[in-house]
Amino acid sequence: MQTKILLPEDRIPKQWYNVIPDLPGPLAPVIHPGTMQPVTPDDLLPLFPMPLIEQEVSQQRWIDIPEAVREIYQLWRPAPMFRAHRLEKALGTPAKIYYKYEGTSPAGSHKPNSAIPQAYYNKISGTKRIATETGAGQWGSSIALACQMFGLECTVYMVKVSFNQKPYRKSMMQLWGAEVIPSPSNRTNSGRSILAEHPESNGSLGIAISEAVEDAVSREDTRYALGSVLNHVCLHQTIIGLEAKEQMALVGDYPDVVIGCHGGGSNFAGIAFPFIADKASGKKVRVLAMEPLSCPTLTRGVYAFDYGDTAKMAPVAKMYTLGHDFMPPGIHAGGLRYHGASPLVSQLVHAGVVEAKAVAQLACFEAAVLFSRTEGIIPAPESSHAIRGAIDEALQAKEEGKEKTILFNLSGHGHVDMAAYDDFLAGHLTDYEYPAEAIKESLAHLPKVG
Amino acid sequence: MQTKILLPEDRIPKQWYNVIPDLPGPLAPVIHPGTMQPVTPDDLLPLFPMPLIEQEVSQQRWIDIPEAVREIYQLWRPAPMFRAHRLEKALGTPAKIYYKYEGTSPAGSHKPNSAIPQAYYNKISGTKRIATETGAGQWGSSIALACQMFGLECTVYMVKVSFNQKPYRKSMMQLWGAEVIPSPSNRTNSGRSILAEHPESNGSLGIAISEAVEDAVSREDTRYALGSVLNHVCLHQTIIGLEAKEQMALVGDYPDVVIGCHGGGSNFAGIAFPFIADKASGKKVRVLAMEPLSCPTLTRGVYAFDYGDTAKMAPVAKMYTLGHDFMPPGIHAGGLRYHGASPLVSQLVHAGVVEAKAVAQLACFEAAVLFSRTEGIIPAPESSHAIRGAIDEALQAKEEGKEKTILFNLSGHGHVDMAAYDDFLAGHLTDYEYPAEAIKESLAHLPKVG
Repeated sequence: MQTKILLPEDRIPKQWYNVIPDLPGPLAPVIHPGTMQPVTPDDLLPLFPMPLIEQEVSQQRWIDIPEAVREIYQLWRPAPMFRAHRLEKALGTPAKIYYKYEGTSPAGSHKPNSAIPQAYYNKISGTKRIATETGAGQWGSSIALACQMFGLECTVYMVKVSFNQKPYRKSMMQLWGAEVIPSPSNRTNSGRSILAEHPESNGSLGIAISEAVEDAVSREDTRYALGSVLNHVCLHQTIIGLEAKEQMALVGDYPDVVIGCHGGGSNFAGIAFPFIADKASGKKVRVLAMEPLSCPTLTRGVYAFDYGDTAKMAPVAKMYTLGHDFMPPGIHAGGLRYHGASPLVSQLVHAGVVEAKAVAQLACFEAAVLFSRTEGIIPAPESSHAIRGAIDEALQAKEEGKEKTILFNLSGHGHVDMAAYDDFLAGHLTDYEYPAEAIKESLAHLPKVG
Repeated sequence: MQTKILLPEDRIPKQWYNVIPDLPGPLAPVIHPGTMQPVTPDDLLPLFPMPLIEQEVSQQRWIDIPEAVREIYQLWRPAPMFRAHRLEKALGTPAKIYYKYEGTSPAGSHKPNSAIPQAYYNKISGTKRIATETGAGQWGSSIALACQMFGLECTVYMVKVSFNQKPYRKSMMQLWGAEVIPSPSNRTNSGRSILAEHPESNGSLGIAISEAVEDAVSREDTRYALGSVLNHVCLHQTIIGLEAKEQMALVGDYPDVVIGCHGGGSNFAGIAFPFIADKASGKKVRVLAMEPLSCPTLTRGVYAFDYGDTAKMAPVAKMYTLGHDFMPPGIHAGGLRYHGASPLVSQLVHAGVVEAKAVAQLACFEAAVLFSRTEGIIPAPESSHAIRGAIDEALQAKEEGKEKTILFNLSGHGHVDMAAYDDFLAGHLTDYEYPAEAIKESLAHLPKVG
């Protein structure tokens, strides 16, 4: 019985897929946070090297992957796909469940798919140092690895609560040569102003982004890097879905529904966009984003212009948002605690091309435990949201007595998240109430654009 | 430039390789610890199911891998092999360095290669529950996973110092449904007698083995499982080297030297034995076992009959040993802290077929950091001993201006060992002095056989 579907090592895709030409309408402009006018490529140069700015706005459907990037991709790509026979059996479902597994990268998640090209394009553009932020540490560890590979310095502003609670990913960054600073810090004006008001602040992704952006624009040799949300990040991640399509074709199958967890959007876009391309050319496939109920950007946010960060230094984009000063509860899936969402994913959700569902924390851990005990692989808490989505689809198929082919993205392993599983198994985890009041309040502070 | 060498998913070997027929002489008998006479298969039945006992003494060169085992192997097998281009460049060596990577298994190490068949053979033989021990937790987590896959109960006696210092692997075992007990415990006579004498005892692998053996023999429904040392464990692990040989052939290469780290012998045997077969048929290849200087079984021990455990309950085998009551210093490579060694590996070392070298802890961490920063993958502290060996061989090739092809086994990732890297990078690690006096004392207590 075939469980694993591998691609040969020379079948790593040679191009990324850019969804922009296949969007249901034109993409809204990105707005400069100072002038409130549409940003120009020149506005972005203090933040990003030109090749990434070009990718951010490119209308080309296919973009070549540099050979130097493909060489490093070989460390974990092509990534394996599995048929979840044992999970199917445990659920008693007629559905077929496939998952693409991104946890075999050196950092244990899908994040290096974008970190490697970002470091590469910075290197060839003369950048000496990268400043970035990280929540749970998956992006921070990946960009640290990528900078090490290309000989760049790296400074990571890590959300303070994760810095203290997730020491292993911090250690990974340091082993790969990065400087890791708990955020809010006194290294930046944004950090200092938060600390002045809230000396005990545990930080947030929005604050850490403000610090990293400020660091980058204040030094000539430094650029900023973001691990999600942006178009070029989604672009790089499409290698996941491109491989997955080839792998499904190898076993003569095609999904009825494609599922990814959603925080900023990078891992979701990675598995989903290549199937959006099929959808755009008339193929029937559902595409489903799973987000945490405690930070329900796509399902409870508004589709509006908002800042990417708390201190209003990052560009303003049209996206689903809970408000840039929304502070999500401290759930274990730290990588999904972001007030905004990828503008690309947002537009697709708004147009009804992509479905979105919010799920509670405990239901996700239940799904992750069942998955660990049937499929063996221990998922990252973020990935557990996709598993929950896949299991619910499979159970629905069982109820309806229907066949169905489900594909989901298992974005990373949970080997450094075991404390979360301990808490869950000991019964110490609770579901947070849906933060309706906090969202209402932060949504009152959206910027006015145009 | 090709970095990764994959085998297609249908090329998982169908047979394990048994080195016994290719040994330089007959294997010494295993002795019953009670009678001091050679054990019979019946003596072993309280410990192991019959199929494993048969494998332990089999003279067949090739042994079929059950289809149910191969199905689960697919979760991480065939395992990737890599050419370490970036490490070679950093060393400036003319040598080619290849490594086989076992860290993509659900448990993050090579240990499931034997855990899965052990659980399978127990299941089909009617075992309901497995008792075992674990040091750093690599074996414990793997057997917990395997028992979960085949519906067996599992109790793991975990060396207390690891139970307290390596909470993540303990959590993995619990997530996979195992009961984890810090050893020495008050669950067994052996545990209670240690605690009576040393209430603060941190435990050792030898003590934990005693507890697990006592647990297994005291319950009809329970058998014992060991993650290293035994012939059948080495047999299962040969899948590593069998795949590696095929992969090297795919790129038209063959190693001059094959290297593995050595604790009890399972990971070393896994990569090495299939090359021993070549050596036995006249092929020129060196085979090198790397062990820690603080527990230098193969290089400073004696080749003699000794107990496999501290409480003298486990069988007595002819092997390299430092004495069954030797207590190695608490180095970070917990998986290499064993007083004895695989009888198969021991015989090969004694006959001069296998070379052995001991290396100090700091030199291994230096190698691991260089490896992490060039190849990207963070090695388990155990695996770092093999990396040190490979680097030293490559540097020697550079000094001699000679070409050389090096293959080593990267037995696992270090994502749950980051505290050790923190200590190393902060300069808190030291090398232990070679424990000459302690070894001398424990060697005075060897049993008299025959």
